Amino acid sequence: MSELTHFDAEGRAHMVDVSEKPVTDRVAVASGHLRMKPETLALIVEGRAKKGDVLGVARLAGIMGAKKTADLIPLCHPLPITKVALDLEPDESLPGIRITATVKTSGQTGVEMEALTAVSVAALTVYDMVKAVEKGMVIGEIRLVMKDGGKSGRYEAGREGAGA
Amino acid sequence: MSELTHFDAEGRAHMVDVSEKPVTDRVAVASGHLRMKPETLALIVEGRAKKGDVLGVARLAGIMGAKKTADLIPLCHPLPITKVALDLEPDESLPGIRITATVKTSGQTGVEMEALTAVSVAALTVYDMVKAVEKGMVIGEIRLVMKDGGKSGRYEAGREGAGA
Amino acid sequence: MSELTHFDAEGRAHMVDVSEKPVTDRVAVASGHLRMKPETLALIVEGRAKKGDVLGVARLAGIMGAKKTADLIPLCHPLPITKVALDLEPDESLPGIRITATVKTSGQTGVEMEALTAVSVAALTVYDMVKAVEKGMVIGEIRLVMKDGGKSGRYEAGREGAGA
Amino acid sequence: MSELTHFDAEGRAHMVDVSEKPVTDRVAVASGHLRMKPETLALIVEGRAKKGDVLGVARLAGIMGAKKTADLIPLCHPLPITKVALDLEPDESLPGIRITATVKTSGQTGVEMEALTAVSVAALTVYDMVKAVEKGMVIGEIRLVMKDGGKSGRYEAGREGAGA
Amino acid sequence: MSELTHFDAEGRAHMVDVSEKPVTDRVAVASGHLRMKPETLALIVEGRAKKGDVLGVARLAGIMGAKKTADLIPLCHPLPITKVALDLEPDESLPGIRITATVKTSGQTGVEMEALTAVSVAALTVYDMVKAVEKGMVIGEIRLVMKDGGKSGRYEAGREGAGA
Amino acid sequence: MSELTHFDAEGRAHMVDVSEKPVTDRVAVASGHLRMKPETLALIVEGRAKKGDVLGVARLAGIMGAKKTADLIPLCHPLPITKVALDLEPDESLPGIRITATVKTSGQTGVEMEALTAVSVAALTVYDMVKAVEKGMVIGEIRLVMKDGGKSGRYEAGREGAGA
Repeated sequence: MSELTHFDAEGRAHMVDVSEKPVTDRVAVASGHLRMKPETLALIVEGRAKKGDVLGVARLAGIMGAKKTADLIPLCHPLPITKVALDLEPDESLPGIRITATVKTSGQTGVEMEALTAVSVAALTVYDMVKAVEKGMVIGEIRLVMKDGGKSGRYEAGREGAGA
Repeated sequence: MSELTHFDAEGRAHMVDVSEKPVTDRVAVASGHLRMKPETLALIVEGRAKKGDVLGVARLAGIMGAKKTADLIPLCHPLPITKVALDLEPDESLPGIRITATVKTSGQTGVEMEALTAVSVAALTVYDMVKAVEKGMVIGEIRLVMKDGGKSGRYEAGREGAGA
Repeated sequence: MSELTHFDAEGRAHMVDVSEKPVTDRVAVASGHLRMKPETLALIVEGRAKKGDVLGVARLAGIMGAKKTADLIPLCHPLPITKVALDLEPDESLPGIRITATVKTSGQTGVEMEALTAVSVAALTVYDMVKAVEKGMVIGEIRLVMKDGGKSGRYEAGREGAGA
Repeated sequence: MSELTHFDAEGRAHMVDVSEKPVTDRVAVASGHLRMKPETLALIVEGRAKKGDVLGVARLAGIMGAKKTADLIPLCHPLPITKVALDLEPDESLPGIRITATVKTSGQTGVEMEALTAVSVAALTVYDMVKAVEKGMVIGEIRLVMKDGGKSGRYEAGREGAGA
Repeated sequence: MSELTHFDAEGRAHMVDVSEKPVTDRVAVASGHLRMKPETLALIVEGRAKKGDVLGVARLAGIMGAKKTADLIPLCHPLPITKVALDLEPDESLPGIRITATVKTSGQTGVEMEALTAVSVAALTVYDMVKAVEKGMVIGEIRLVMKDGGKSGRYEAGREGAGA
Repeated sequence: MSELTHFDAEGRAHMVDVSEKPVTDRVAVASGHLRMKPETLALIVEGRAKKGDVLGVARLAGIMGAKKTADLIPLCHPLPITKVALDLEPDESLPGIRITATVKTSGQTGVEMEALTAVSVAALTVYDMVKAVEKGMVIGEIRLVMKDGGKSGRYEAGREGAGA
């Protein structure tokens, strides 16, 4: 297991030097969910059909949130994102909303944080819009599903080996 | 169960009019965690003792994140926050980090979103700083623990009734 | 006709001192439009009915844009906005989209700039989403429709007198 | 006439994937104006000569606004702008101020939105600085004058064909 | 000498709770300078007379910088600023530019940081605009000149006692 | 001595066109200090050993500040920073804190402003955290220590010739 690269030899936080790393195509996928009561989910689903598109607002918030990642996460490098897409699907078995975000760039570091931030902001936005109805909703299982590109290569959740 | 207040009668999203609501003291507490392998947690705990204060960086990111809430959540009202405090505690039983955020304001709406955002950004920041060691960490159980102030009064998780 | 208050006696720009002004309820309404070809308008209207809600995205962008006004306009005072609502209506007689924004606050200055900024950002967002289809669209007639509150009182476009 | 590319097959908004597009030099020019009473224009022109440089402030606001484009327009890609210049000219025949913005980048998408945003923010800033004198000013005719670079090549307003 | 209030009993950074403090009128004045070669100063002064208003641009940057203070300084409370004014004066005895900023608010904490930030950003902006001519310029003597309002009352530099 | 490049032939401020400049590796180092009473310095040093890491908070603020440079300095080009590191060292001979920042990028312009901004924001943050104890602290001697890369090549403070 390696050391924490965000600190120097004296333990001081720094933004890691990536200037020697090549620019490569990178992609990351993250997911998460928001659990709620069945009747709250019904309200969201019904609203989408008729009026009041909660998931459309949250999708947009997630896309804009991905662009703010380097502003939110102190040691994150700013990156020229080339794609962001979010999928928010109602799931009655949760019950709640399942969220997936895909982010791409060509850069010197990966976009894992952008994908995870997109999912987090989308989940928070759904919470905000529905909290007058149910305050007990829970945001959960936000994780990296996949990343590819860069020196460390491909990662897929559930398939990680010793170095994952 | 009430309607979704963030949409008007035609289903169009809007920032709810709070201009008639009185300015009152408000507080909100949110919590969440980041689960990881025991050896990753050990690395964070050890680093804190010696050098490389992951939790100190994440705490600061959470505080600054709370101030960006209205910028991240589309329909959130901007609020003059009067206090933000974050607690990040290692918990070997997870294993991982437990995060709690407390936010206060005197305003016309509550600070639930600010507290939830602070927890989310702090969790994302820990992930960012440790992801070179373990990519499989999971952010989970982000929820509102308590809120007080305003017309809807006090809410405590686990004690909500029908209208919670 | 009065002087330009955003400059001091030596002609230096400054943010006007409003610390002596009372906090009062204020509202402003602004409007504008985006003109386009009939077939472009048809594409937007059709998309809204089925899929691809251009106007919903633009409405949200306008709301978030209103919150960024003091960040965009150099001498604008930051204000705690208490309401933002946007209306985007297709109008075949333009042909194009008519946009109206209503903003409220309780503060020491008015929200005219917030309403005008909301309309501008919403119009730019529609342009962005449709520009692959028609680059010749024109944003026009962005103006203040009404404002009320504060020492200068009520203003309605088309009814201004000598001091308007 | 093509489809709206900012939506996927299910009508969900996304930030279009430009990762396969080559990095090319791009330029865009946009224009617009702010109409006002002749005496208001005289006040601005006179102020510029002596003291109170309204147009200088607006020029700077437009430059800074161009840098905020990806923050304002939800589905816009962040771009490393390499040039921004604004021209604000009094025009007694309007009467008012004519605004032109030129923006350049080397990137995977164009800078049309940056140029249009620069014009919009400059116009809003003039409005802000002069509104104590005249509230009835109107921002109008904001349009793309020219763009070049990228796969779709050159566009000039007034010369567009069927696909413009 | 008191303790560092930005840390709790366990040494954790937090945004201090000011929710119990009354809203009072507050003002702060800060100053600083930028030293340079006499010929560089001459270039700025000459430019101001004819064309190229370095100090006008820096003044505006300082005003906008004051509005970003809570975004830049991690534990700073967001405040509704009610006035910002900057004075940038050439001083041949330095030689260089002397900068003074005055900021006001009605709030629960002071605006010392806003005034100091305004001076810093204005000085950095002058440096940026002139650095092609002289890279050896030095920003210096940025300090609080005066503050008033709030529980701790009035402070004037050079008159502080033991507890200043 | 050359002209001020941030203005065009008519004296209008603009963001300089760097689109023809090659992308090269660039580095800049800036330094500065914060002077204070010996007992204030002792409080910071003591706090670092035990609890209350003032310098750790300021280091992080400086890193995040570097990322905001193009947002703060009106005519600065946005740049994809590839490294930021800050060093804050107590110096009893001042007495106070000495601050050094190193910033890297691969881009079309240099990162001098990013390094100077990092130092400034770090110094302001130390001031903020300690101001309840001593308001008379002074930020001073903020200067460029070194830059390299780009057409103008290497610069080292104290070694500049006529054209430095």
